[in-house]
Amino acid sequence: MHSSVAAIDLPPWLVEHGPFVAGQTDAERMELALDLAQQNVDEGSGGPFAAIVIEETSGACVAAGVNLVIASGLSVAHAEAVAIMLAQRDAAHFDLAGLPGRRFSLYATGQPCVMCFGILWWSGITKLVCAARGEDIEQLTGFQEGPLPNNWPALLSQRGSLPPIAVVQDVQRDRACDVLRAYRAAGHPIYNPGSTGD
Amino acid sequence: MHSSVAAIDLPPWLVEHGPFVAGQTDAERMELALDLAQQNVDEGSGGPFAAIVIEETSGACVAAGVNLVIASGLSVAHAEAVAIMLAQRDAAHFDLAGLPGRRFSLYATGQPCVMCFGILWWSGITKLVCAARGEDIEQLTGFQEGPLPNNWPALLSQRGSLPPIAVVQDVQRDRACDVLRAYRAAGHPIYNPGSTGD
Repeated sequence: MHSSVAAIDLPPWLVEHGPFVAGQTDAERMELALDLAQQNVDEGSGGPFAAIVIEETSGACVAAGVNLVIASGLSVAHAEAVAIMLAQRDAAHFDLAGLPGRRFSLYATGQPCVMCFGILWWSGITKLVCAARGEDIEQLTGFQEGPLPNNWPALLSQRGSLPPIAVVQDVQRDRACDVLRAYRAAGHPIYNPGSTGD
Repeated sequence: MHSSVAAIDLPPWLVEHGPFVAGQTDAERMELALDLAQQNVDEGSGGPFAAIVIEETSGACVAAGVNLVIASGLSVAHAEAVAIMLAQRDAAHFDLAGLPGRRFSLYATGQPCVMCFGILWWSGITKLVCAARGEDIEQLTGFQEGPLPNNWPALLSQRGSLPPIAVVQDVQRDRACDVLRAYRAAGHPIYNPGSTGD
């Protein structure tokens, strides 16, 4: 038995370039996330996706993640999951909605897949901003994003006794699509389940 | 910037008791998972959930996970996620459906929440066996499992070009409910998002 689940190592370029300073507007913050997604493509370090977490009271960028599925050997290592895990480690708490006086927003270069939708659900994030739509990702890359409910933004923003997660879509969508196209054009792998087998 | 996302440390009792040998039937395998879930409650090391991964060609139990959300400080550390990450590390591959001649099944003491449904989607697991229903979990503990689609077993078992994930429900459901009741009766925390804040 191993005594721990493998850590996900961040690529050296991401560690060296951080910590990051984000702007105040949704568009400015998404620019930073898209810079990281593009660099993840250019460096060949993972899929064409990045996500950052902003603490809204201070405006600080507390976490920056990129897609690291292949490098880590873990299918959970989507950019959003990496960013949320880093933010929770930074906050020393599993529930980002459980820290008085602090609120956390996730800026993701792609609409959540079926997995990241669920990871967001438990994270304590209270605002999601995303760039590319799910159909952009599927059409421009070939990744299959899974059965996200059609009314997913409403499911996040209206969830009974749980803290609502506000959703803002289509911020910098065109540039996000350019990053997706660049990944595909470079011939990088589309690693849907079962695609690597015989 | 940290150079890696925090590892999830397994509790000492789990490391000491492994590796595990599971039986051949679904009921026998679920017994092992339920033993681990009950011990996680008894030891106070996490939520009332466990999951094991079986490689079907050899029958080997290649991973055993328990819920470690509070201990790890990471909301992703549900038992199913921990078990899948351990299995992928053991296989040295992010796609358990991508290893010729090997097939992997997940035995989980609870029906997947919205997050574990999505984690399963990308994992390469091709059979899911679960014990307690989502409504058992919600009614007996107070955990809110999120908006899983009503037809979730069909969504897993019929997913176009992706490898199907067969679903078997209600295996050892009664005993799984006993574990859930034991957790609640012991006064252990119900850590829904926002529940730990002011």
